[in-house]
Amino acid sequence: MNFELHAQLAQDCHRLGRFELGLLLLMDDASYPWFVLVPQRAGVREVYELDAADRALLWEESAALSRALMAAFRGDKLNLAALGNVVPQLHLHHIVRYAGDPAWPAPVWGRHPPRPYTAAELERRRAALLPHLPAGFTAAYAAPG
Amino acid sequence: MNFELHAQLAQDCHRLGRFELGLLLLMDDASYPWFVLVPQRAGVREVYELDAADRALLWEESAALSRALMAAFRGDKLNLAALGNVVPQLHLHHIVRYAGDPAWPAPVWGRHPPRPYTAAELERRRAALLPHLPAGFTAAYAAPG
Repeated sequence: MNFELHAQLAQDCHRLGRFELGLLLLMDDASYPWFVLVPQRAGVREVYELDAADRALLWEESAALSRALMAAFRGDKLNLAALGNVVPQLHLHHIVRYAGDPAWPAPVWGRHPPRPYTAAELERRRAALLPHLPAGFTAAYAAPG
Repeated sequence: MNFELHAQLAQDCHRLGRFELGLLLLMDDASYPWFVLVPQRAGVREVYELDAADRALLWEESAALSRALMAAFRGDKLNLAALGNVVPQLHLHHIVRYAGDPAWPAPVWGRHPPRPYTAAELERRRAALLPHLPAGFTAAYAAPG
């Protein structure tokens, strides 16, 4: 079974590129710097279902992404979550939070309708992040759809 | 600086014991099998702030806990999250979810007031989990407070 990005994630997110294991997505909601890391393994719903080597690689990619996000966006807190109650394909939310952002201090899910990016906002956010990502990241943009 | 469990976590949770790195807590909300893993390292707010060896150990303990939870409680999905917007000490939520539970399919935070355990419910939940935890876990109960 080959990995294919879940249709709901493809529709909700900009694709920014890939680490060795994880696809990097940007949720199309400009209210928060909200990124999603999706390990390119078919049929996986839970982190513990990955084999030990993949799991270690995924968490190292998550840590590198987390550092890059906090360096680029100077948040007050990072929220990290694997929920998957609605979209079963394993995906890790990485959300930069600010004291005073629209949902603070609550989690972001279900608080406000998403505010899609304008082209200028999207370009600003991508340009802020890309220089902080490690050498193992390959940029390759695709729009939601 | 020595590790000390954050007062809010101590007040909200039953302490069940410890892995090598992580304290295992049970949120005092019987609505869900809701567990919290707290690495015993002082002054850490984000996963990526742990050194690489601690981070690897924490995620292996999280995977072992996750497997044990799903074996014990037969959930439909596991929710895994490090939020920390309110309690800054790094802590990882592990919440067993069922289609049709009180918050499903939304995340659990902020949906319903917590429903404290009765002594009998607490004993049932502990007894269901303990046999599934790995040999590296040491049970040591302490009540919320």
